[in-house]
Amino acid sequence: MNYKNGQLPTILITNDDGVTAPGIKNLVEAVKDLGNLIVVAPDKPQSGMGHAITIGNPLRMNQVYLFEGIEAWQISGTPVDCVKLAVDKLLQGKPDICLSGINHGANHSINVIYSGTMSAAMEASIEGIPSIGFSLMEYGMEADFSASREVVRTVVKKILAQPQPDHLLLNVNIPYVSIDEIKGIKICRQAFAKYREEFDERRDPHGRKYYWLTGEFLNLDTGNDTDVWALQNNYVSVVPVSIDFTDHKLKAQLEKKWVDNPIPVS
Amino acid sequence: MNYKNGQLPTILITNDDGVTAPGIKNLVEAVKDLGNLIVVAPDKPQSGMGHAITIGNPLRMNQVYLFEGIEAWQISGTPVDCVKLAVDKLLQGKPDICLSGINHGANHSINVIYSGTMSAAMEASIEGIPSIGFSLMEYGMEADFSASREVVRTVVKKILAQPQPDHLLLNVNIPYVSIDEIKGIKICRQAFAKYREEFDERRDPHGRKYYWLTGEFLNLDTGNDTDVWALQNNYVSVVPVSIDFTDHKLKAQLEKKWVDNPIPVS
Repeated sequence: MNYKNGQLPTILITNDDGVTAPGIKNLVEAVKDLGNLIVVAPDKPQSGMGHAITIGNPLRMNQVYLFEGIEAWQISGTPVDCVKLAVDKLLQGKPDICLSGINHGANHSINVIYSGTMSAAMEASIEGIPSIGFSLMEYGMEADFSASREVVRTVVKKILAQPQPDHLLLNVNIPYVSIDEIKGIKICRQAFAKYREEFDERRDPHGRKYYWLTGEFLNLDTGNDTDVWALQNNYVSVVPVSIDFTDHKLKAQLEKKWVDNPIPVS
Repeated sequence: MNYKNGQLPTILITNDDGVTAPGIKNLVEAVKDLGNLIVVAPDKPQSGMGHAITIGNPLRMNQVYLFEGIEAWQISGTPVDCVKLAVDKLLQGKPDICLSGINHGANHSINVIYSGTMSAAMEASIEGIPSIGFSLMEYGMEADFSASREVVRTVVKKILAQPQPDHLLLNVNIPYVSIDEIKGIKICRQAFAKYREEFDERRDPHGRKYYWLTGEFLNLDTGNDTDVWALQNNYVSVVPVSIDFTDHKLKAQLEKKWVDNPIPVS
């Protein structure tokens, strides 16, 4: 693929399931001829780490030889740490794009907030690197990634084919069906959803209580323009994500209310 | 304060600096007569944990007796875990409001993404609990919270005085000056800012490299309607935060582009 006057793009690859997960191997396979790849990923699973960064401990960085002909590093920190270290210590300047995943499990709707996969992509977006997080709707380590490899390749080629905004950030979720059953790719909004927590209370051998987080996913959104709807209908969902978290509508409302009733600090 | 036909509101208090931090003690002091308080906070500092949740380990929960006459618990997890456990195991139904902080250090602009203080408030907002995160622009454990106690009290009274949207989520940052120097409270948008990472590379006694995360804050936003501007000019900044991360503007652009050039999955 031509890019920037014939130069192949530099592609930073990361994930949150760890550098040895099948998902990242399949991501590399899907795009390895589209650019110069460098893999920088956690040395162990980091699911649910959200946008955590490591402040209280130092980080270790070790080269690994898991991907033929591709430079790869494992980091002792979070997905966000990986992106930060890659940009500061491993790359000569910013990569042209950052790809995170393929995650073992969905990151649609509210999961974008908890997801290490998406947080890594979000960190790259903050850095001004166009970024895409990919997730497959199947948790198992034995998942079949053949359809998702094709989806990834299609999306990445599409994005590389023309200039993108620096802060482009896409949350791509892929239904776990065969390629023939995928109906297409749909640009969506994040579904309004949440988890109903149900902590599993147990007692240790000394009689003291402890709690395991479990929860039931609740889709509270009936729209047919959401990522959850798209996935339920066998579309690949693509949600453009913002790094400006301001609620501009609520801001306008509050400005009116608070100006109408100015509150002195006293 | 009257609330819901004379019933005092239930106020869930949490933070990310840990249950023993001076900031949470000052938050409790500021609002203890405004409702029925319950404190549920991490048992150790959790700064920079973002929206991390604990999946791979169980959680411990122990009652502590740090606040006179107020039920308080410490949790062995992240700020988000604290809110989840409080809602599922400690409260009879949802609290009327969740207050997180007072954080030792600013959480303006892009810090909303990394901040455990704001992630706790965000988790409560996802649960449908109006929430406010408070941060003081001073890191020290010896910080003087007297002005910020007054600011907190003013904001909380204002919010409790009238019905609020269930998902109300405010990021409140307080300049570290005396109460007389605070010019007022300003509704703002999140400034566009980032950190320039500079990992401090060291060698351990065995000669192996390790890295400490450090970074320089860069405000890339010249607007005078941002939280950074407000704080620089001695205003308290209030940014309404959304839990819908969809970039609706980019969504509209992509829909147009991708429909103009439909991409088959193949």
